[in-house]
Formats: sequence, C-alpha cells, structure tokens
Amino acid sequence: MRIGAIEAGGTKFICGIGNEEGEIQERVSFPTEHPEQTLSQVILYFRGRQADAIGIGSFGPIDVDVSSPRYGCITTTPKPGWAGFDFLGTMKRAFDVPFGWDTDVNAAAYGEAMWGAAKNLQSCVYFTIGTGIGTGVYVEGKRVHGLVHSEGGHILTRRHPEDDFQGCCIYHGDCLEGMAAGPAIEQRWGTKGSELPADHPAWAIEAFYIGQAVASTILLMSPEKVILGGGVMHQEQLFPLIHREVQRNLNGYVQHEAILSEIEQYIVAPGLGDNAGLCGALALGVDALKQRKG
Amino acid sequence: MRIGAIEAGGTKFICGIGNEEGEIQERVSFPTEHPEQTLSQVILYFRGRQADAIGIGSFGPIDVDVSSPRYGCITTTPKPGWAGFDFLGTMKRAFDVPFGWDTDVNAAAYGEAMWGAAKNLQSCVYFTIGTGIGTGVYVEGKRVHGLVHSEGGHILTRRHPEDDFQGCCIYHGDCLEGMAAGPAIEQRWGTKGSELPADHPAWAIEAFYIGQAVASTILLMSPEKVILGGGVMHQEQLFPLIHREVQRNLNGYVQHEAILSEIEQYIVAPGLGDNAGLCGALALGVDALKQRKG
Repeated sequence: MRIGAIEAGGTKFICGIGNEEGEIQERVSFPTEHPEQTLSQVILYFRGRQADAIGIGSFGPIDVDVSSPRYGCITTTPKPGWAGFDFLGTMKRAFDVPFGWDTDVNAAAYGEAMWGAAKNLQSCVYFTIGTGIGTGVYVEGKRVHGLVHSEGGHILTRRHPEDDFQGCCIYHGDCLEGMAAGPAIEQRWGTKGSELPADHPAWAIEAFYIGQAVASTILLMSPEKVILGGGVMHQEQLFPLIHREVQRNLNGYVQHEAILSEIEQYIVAPGLGDNAGLCGALALGVDALKQRKG
Repeated sequence: MRIGAIEAGGTKFICGIGNEEGEIQERVSFPTEHPEQTLSQVILYFRGRQADAIGIGSFGPIDVDVSSPRYGCITTTPKPGWAGFDFLGTMKRAFDVPFGWDTDVNAAAYGEAMWGAAKNLQSCVYFTIGTGIGTGVYVEGKRVHGLVHSEGGHILTRRHPEDDFQGCCIYHGDCLEGMAAGPAIEQRWGTKGSELPADHPAWAIEAFYIGQAVASTILLMSPEKVILGGGVMHQEQLFPLIHREVQRNLNGYVQHEAILSEIEQYIVAPGLGDNAGLCGALALGVDALKQRKG
C-alpha cells in the first residue's frame, strides 16, 4: 500500500506518503494560507505520487456527518476563506481514490490507538495543547463523532486562586483554551511559554487547568489512556505536575491502579511524538482503502 | 422471550419480568438492606418465574471488566456489607441462565437507546440526578466502559456566584454531586427539594450546575441526545432553565441546530420515564440471551 496523509493545521499543512504499518516514507510542509493556494500546493504534492488512498485530519470545526450536505467542509472558523470551504470535495475532484476524513485531533487519537501510546487499547482521549486546545476521542474501538465531534478544549474549568488573567477565548473568555492554550500563557506572562524556565510558576498554573480537564474527562468517559500532545506539552516538566493535579482532583474516588499508582503510564505524551497527527491521517487513509476493498 | 430485569439501586431494588420489545409485564420492589437479605429476596422473586436470561443494572462503582477477577462485584461503596460483594456471582450460582451486567446508569442509557428518547440514535448520555448523580454513556452504538465506567457525577463545576453552600460529597466536597444532588439541595435550603415551590431560587442554582455539566459533556463527547432523569428532574421547571444555561455556556460555539434552535428536543427527560432503569436492565438481559444464542 502507498497511502497519502494530510495533517491540515490552522498554521501549517503537513503532507506525506506512508504505508499500512504506520511508517511515513516522505513528507513536506507548508504554511496554511487561503484555501485555494494551500490546496493547490497539496494537489501538486500528491500529483504523480500514486497514492492508493488519502487520509485527511483537518483543523475545524468540520462536518464529519456523512449524511450531511456539508460533509467534508470546514464549518465555522475565523481563518479567512476557510469557513464553509469544501476541503474534502476539492480533494476528491482532484484524485479518484478513497478518502478518509476526520478532525486533526480524532486522527491523532486514532494514530495513537493504531501505532502509538494506546496501541491494543479500545479507548483513548488525545488532547493537543498548542495555539488552541483540541480533543480527539476514540471509544470502544471507534472514533467518536456523535452530534458534531469533540471540542473539549472549550470546557469550563475553575480558576486558579492566584490567577487573575481574564482569558482569551473569543467564544468563552476563560474556558480551558482561553486559560491554558499557548496564547493564554503568552498573554498572562508577557512571554512565550517556550521562553519561560522550567521552574517558572506558569507551569503549576498550566497544570492546574489541564489537570482539571483531564480529571473531568476521566470521570465522564473513563478512557484507557489519556494522551497529551501539542507544542505546550513539549514542556515535559508539566507531566508530573498534571499527574498530581489529576490525583488531587479525583481524590481516590476512581479506584484503579492506572490512576492510583501507575499514573505516569496512564497520562502520557504521544507515543508517535509529533508524528501523531500525520500518522493518524495515514491511518484514516488505510481505513478508507480497506473499506473500499470491502 | 421471558427476560428478568434487576434495577439495583442504593435505596431500593426493583425486579421485573419483561420481553424483547421492552415491555415490563410484572414488577416488585423492596428496600436495599444488607446484601444477603436483599439477594435472598431477589432470588426468591425469580424462583419459578422461568426467566430465559436476567439483566442487572447496579449501583456502584462496580467492576465491569470481564477479564478482572472482581468482574460482577460492587467495588467501593459506603453502604454496609456491599463493598466487594460478588453480586453477579451470587446470582449466577442461583440461576443457570445468561446474565447481563452493567451500571444502573449505563443500563438506563441503553434502555433509552433501545426503546426511549434516544431510539434509533448511535449515542446518548444519561444523567440521573437524585440521592447522588450518576452518568451512563452510550457511544457509537456501544455502552462505554473503558478503564472503569463513567462517573460524571463527580466532575468539578464552577460555583454559582450567590451560592455559599460548601458542598457535601465525601470525596470532593463541592463537585457536581456535592452541589446539585438531592442532599445538597436539602442541606442548602433546609428543606427537601420536593417541598420547594417551582419558582424558588433553588432551581436557578440547580440549573446553573447541571447546565455546566451538560455543556462539558456536549463539548467532550458530542452525544446525539442528553437525557436527564432521577428524582430531582421530576421538577420539570428545571428543563427550560437548563436549556438556557447550556446555550449560555456554549455561546454559539457548537454550530448545530440541536443546540441552537431545537434544544428542547435535545436535552430531554427519559422517554421511558421512571422505567428507564428497569427497561435498561431488561435490554441487558435481552442482549445476554442473544449473545448466548450467537
């Protein structure tokens, strides 16, 4: 198999070719501009590369309801030109191959379930914490859509008692994303998170918010693995702080060794590292080809 | 088919006989006492009633992991005698029929998905709001277990600005259950909720907490239906207040008509009314028989 993969992010697009083992053989990346420009580059990349199928994990919100007339479109986004853009349809008109289509974060969760930290498990939740906060959900062996798809980055969390930052989500002000995504860290401290030292008080506050969100996720969905990726989670000192916050919030209520004594193996970085998104798109492409073959 | 059903609650047990159409033909109820006494009554009830299978929806937390040595047991509960009790094993030793086993709230969610408000849908989340708050999760056509099972009654919510009640959850103090279950209402106002008038300020505060929890559930899991049952939800004036709170919290972010314009049909009372739990146990029994027959 020769499978195309597109990790379509709000900042950059990564395209690649891989196989059914989750191995990426080549890749390319370019900035996300207006959809016509960006898709022209995507189509040019895949021309002549003979992909048997293509998987797309896209920033969103997107329409993933196969019965909807807007299936395959980006729905609401402040990014100029992208709201309502028929991403999947544009690709289908260019290439007559099976396509897989899901959110970028559901794709990452799926990639991790196939080949990464949640391999051989039936469920995981993937948080990507970067410019925004997104959640991907894989439950009982399936990527979850439901009414729309998971948007857990916008849940409300309690305010840290020493934090007076007002929050920067344009929809909700001080929701999780508004308090804990990269821009919130930068606005709260006047410096990018990547420039703050590992022992800066910023990280305890960051872990406070992420820990609450993860605790709520465990209580509501009981995933077998929680995976935390994205640029902010490159700050590895966050992991032990988040482990403690989750245990503090749950306070012994969920009686399972994964939480009580093995939390370091339960709430983890992506097993595929920064390849989780692209590998996930690859997994969507593999799936699409298998479905076509019946 | 002649299927036995047990809705095992912390306060009372309801046992019945029904069929594969979800029809309950007879039922009986008795208070929950020590497990030996209670199970004696259950076994006596089913003796001579010739059930082809029995479904059990149990209060918990319970062990639903079929690979666990404690599968079928109640795990941690303050109820005398019940912690560690092998509920399913006791029943299996008394009756040589297929058994279905899940939490009471997962059973209720499943009953609603089979024959109630979520009929023909692939997902729903069921909240029961009474003496405690429990959550049942049905996603992509399956009852969700994962690491343990859903315990969404214990998520943290933000405090209502005019509420100084300290909360009464023995694990978490002011988690959702500690602020919004029946005992919290009674302790906050000095009167049982059922005795407060429909225009009492208690209900706006109640809706504030439930609305937050439902909004977080929608953001994380995107269910196709949210069902609110249990004694507290007999206060029907809560529904429009909760609809408004959910819309206020989401603030237009989730662009779907179910939330934007048809929320009265999206967040609803159980279609099966107070039969949701028993019908759900019945559905577990029907499933168990079908699985045995292959």
